[in-house]
Amino acid sequence: MKGYRNVLLTTDFTEHEEPVAEKAADLAALYQAELSICHAVNSLPITESVYGPIIPYDGDLTAQLVFAAKRKLLDMGALYGVPEQRQWVVVGSPKTEILGLAEEKATDLIVVGSHGRHGLGVLLGSTATSLLNHARCDVLAVRLTNADV
Amino acid sequence: MKGYRNVLLTTDFTEHEEPVAEKAADLAALYQAELSICHAVNSLPITESVYGPIIPYDGDLTAQLVFAAKRKLLDMGALYGVPEQRQWVVVGSPKTEILGLAEEKATDLIVVGSHGRHGLGVLLGSTATSLLNHARCDVLAVRLTNADV
Repeated sequence: MKGYRNVLLTTDFTEHEEPVAEKAADLAALYQAELSICHAVNSLPITESVYGPIIPYDGDLTAQLVFAAKRKLLDMGALYGVPEQRQWVVVGSPKTEILGLAEEKATDLIVVGSHGRHGLGVLLGSTATSLLNHARCDVLAVRLTNADV
Repeated sequence: MKGYRNVLLTTDFTEHEEPVAEKAADLAALYQAELSICHAVNSLPITESVYGPIIPYDGDLTAQLVFAAKRKLLDMGALYGVPEQRQWVVVGSPKTEILGLAEEKATDLIVVGSHGRHGLGVLLGSTATSLLNHARCDVLAVRLTNADV
């Protein structure tokens, strides 16, 4: 059986995401795969406007977000048995950074929470859709319930 | 562990889809879930044009496609241990019909091949994306390789 070896769970740390992490952990256990977890801190300045950056890059804020994300990943890692060396905080465009990490780590399955195309999801786009459309590996989109976005 | 109980594999019968079926079958076996397979025959006439239907509904052609699809599902079912009562041919809009079937059968995971957003996929859209955006259950998109669309 050609199963999964490297499973990458992406997390937003939202309150509805627990089932996503649980499913990723269960799946990794069943396949005897290594589970990694990552969080993307979106800190890209908007530079496409002819008026220059609308939201400038804020180094201090980004550092704080990265610090907070690392702490949360530590908690999550303890809960799901993922050691620190497989916990990743990436900074930049979530799609680009997560896909880059996935390729670097030879990920064969990305697990991501999915909001579907309703509520704010329609306007903001969805990380799940974006990953699905561009990943070179499989993507498991876990439906989030009780979430409006 | 709250795993998957009803896995629905959607198939297009394209030559690159074997890994999709294999992964669905492996996953169903690991979770001790029931595997079902379905194929959607897209036979909706295009009725939105102000000039009337552009591609009229062809009952004979549809019947032939359904017949051919049922035979192919029988072969696939034999290969992956899916009995005839869990083989489904749906007719209409693939997204709507597959999602309707998934809800009717209490599917908790849809497995679908994914072409990504390159080649013709960009123009035609992707069943995987469409299912991901609208399914009420989890969706596993298996990356198709060696496929241009």
